[in-house]
Amino acid sequence: MRLILVAGATRTAEVEGITAAGASRDLLVHTPSADAEIVSYGDTIRAPVTPVSPSGCPTPAVVTRAVRELLGFDVTVVDAGLAKPTGAPTVSVGARPGDDIREPDPVRTAPGAFAAARSYGRGLPDDRIVVGETIPGGTTTALAVLRALGEDALPATSSSLPENPVELKERVISAAFEASDIDPGQAAHTPELAVRFVGDPVLAVAAGIVAGAVESGTEVVLGGGTQLLAVAALVRHAGVPAPATLATTSYLAGDVSELGAAADALDLDLTVADPGFDAPEAGPLSAYADGVAKEGAGMGGALRLADEAGRLGEVRDAARTVLDRVRRRGDRDATADRGADGGS
Amino acid sequence: MRLILVAGATRTAEVEGITAAGASRDLLVHTPSADAEIVSYGDTIRAPVTPVSPSGCPTPAVVTRAVRELLGFDVTVVDAGLAKPTGAPTVSVGARPGDDIREPDPVRTAPGAFAAARSYGRGLPDDRIVVGETIPGGTTTALAVLRALGEDALPATSSSLPENPVELKERVISAAFEASDIDPGQAAHTPELAVRFVGDPVLAVAAGIVAGAVESGTEVVLGGGTQLLAVAALVRHAGVPAPATLATTSYLAGDVSELGAAADALDLDLTVADPGFDAPEAGPLSAYADGVAKEGAGMGGALRLADEAGRLGEVRDAARTVLDRVRRRGDRDATADRGADGGS
Repeated sequence: MRLILVAGATRTAEVEGITAAGASRDLLVHTPSADAEIVSYGDTIRAPVTPVSPSGCPTPAVVTRAVRELLGFDVTVVDAGLAKPTGAPTVSVGARPGDDIREPDPVRTAPGAFAAARSYGRGLPDDRIVVGETIPGGTTTALAVLRALGEDALPATSSSLPENPVELKERVISAAFEASDIDPGQAAHTPELAVRFVGDPVLAVAAGIVAGAVESGTEVVLGGGTQLLAVAALVRHAGVPAPATLATTSYLAGDVSELGAAADALDLDLTVADPGFDAPEAGPLSAYADGVAKEGAGMGGALRLADEAGRLGEVRDAARTVLDRVRRRGDRDATADRGADGGS
Repeated sequence: MRLILVAGATRTAEVEGITAAGASRDLLVHTPSADAEIVSYGDTIRAPVTPVSPSGCPTPAVVTRAVRELLGFDVTVVDAGLAKPTGAPTVSVGARPGDDIREPDPVRTAPGAFAAARSYGRGLPDDRIVVGETIPGGTTTALAVLRALGEDALPATSSSLPENPVELKERVISAAFEASDIDPGQAAHTPELAVRFVGDPVLAVAAGIVAGAVESGTEVVLGGGTQLLAVAALVRHAGVPAPATLATTSYLAGDVSELGAAADALDLDLTVADPGFDAPEAGPLSAYADGVAKEGAGMGGALRLADEAGRLGEVRDAARTVLDRVRRRGDRDATADRGADGGS
């Protein structure tokens, strides 16, 4: 068993108001690199920011790490276009950060990265993998990709914000189709072009890994929400029938009522795990239950593994332990920054 | 607990007859990348060669992986100038492959990589790390570095060959001091220049990680032989008193009689583990006992961990399991190659 975190960036995330992943631009661009470190080491080590909001809302990477500390499975981070250096070990597949999809041809590395990731996925010796993602702005590009594939029946995607900024996303997506001069459904038989013109490098790399893994007989669990639905659609449009499981959180499933139908349409088994973060003992973890960060960094997949092991009930305490550790580091960094600024 | 494998290349390895790591040039340049994959996945996945000689003599990475499969600790590979792509996840510290030390200024990235690795080592959250290396030709550059530091009392280094080609190494080292125009002992206060002028990038990165880890209170086990002695010397010459353990194999210790004295001189505790590869049940693993590959890829460090856990006696069977897996992949690759060539 190996959890593969596909981490990258799209400048689409810089559209004002489109994502909660990172309260400031600084936090935003460093979040995937920091998530990779938290999952790999249990703390940030090189990233200059800690992806925990001032209100204490933690990155879902904290939950994925907590489950890993409970169960001890392998984690591998694949660099799907990280914008900032990370101290986490990463696998290279030639991806670069994606541009804003309102620019023409924003993900030029997508076809090459898809092919390299597919070969990587094919070579994996594992019986089973869980695939997760971390990319701020990724729900918008996922929705655009579904539309480019002609998968209009699939649901509007979720959001990292309590109120999904649907109209804003629609404006961005329209501009993307216009900029790259393609029509909805036009990339149904060329999924790598759907990603290249209106997607992001994480979708390309995750789809490549899943396609290759399925082709070589590895069982695949897609750990996440609507971005992983887009990954499944890409795999299927690449001609690989993908018998996989979509494992998500109760918070995401509660937000997207059409999720079951969408999973059915893509032949995905859907499993939903509730880690009980709405209980008083959850402290700052209740931000998930409040809808601030419903999924991401493989959280749903990790919870599925905890559930299978009969240890879902231990996740809450384990996640609080990791969160306390990560926040201490954040406080230390903030103090060091103030020191460097000469006080105040 | 984290085992850190520092993997890289020096073109010094291409001097005919200097190393057994890789029977052919092809095997030689791919060995560190393949070792990284074996330790990370239990098999090669992207490397086109399997570092097992035709006689079945396996890379020590097989043993390190076997212990990892027994004990389940974390492994992180740091890219210290890999010459070929690897499917293993790697941490970047800005190192590039080293040139042949008979060329002037062969490791220009050494000072920068040392600094980045030191910062990385300082940030590690682990209580304890084991540091190992994989770099063909590395015993020659280690000997040259010890000499540049003025550590002449330290022993002649070991070799991956049954008969250590001492005279050849001495010729290469003399040429190195001449090419970079430095004298023995001249770099005693500038260890990063010792590595830059007569060393290799793995020494720079390993020394940086160890220095940073010690500075931040992490316990360090140096898992290896004379190359790790050179790492300890570099750390000490960088002004960091390094209370560490040197954990090596009985095969290496048997080959270098002065090892205990050298460890003493550097304030290192020396531990030696015997995995019993001379028994009939060891099969192809007996190549270690025969002196073909005495140490490397963190093998001594991994054996130390197995010993502490009271499971040293299980390593032989576990290593045979990994070796069988790796060889099957090698056979498959060879068959695929023949297929691609159109038969025969």
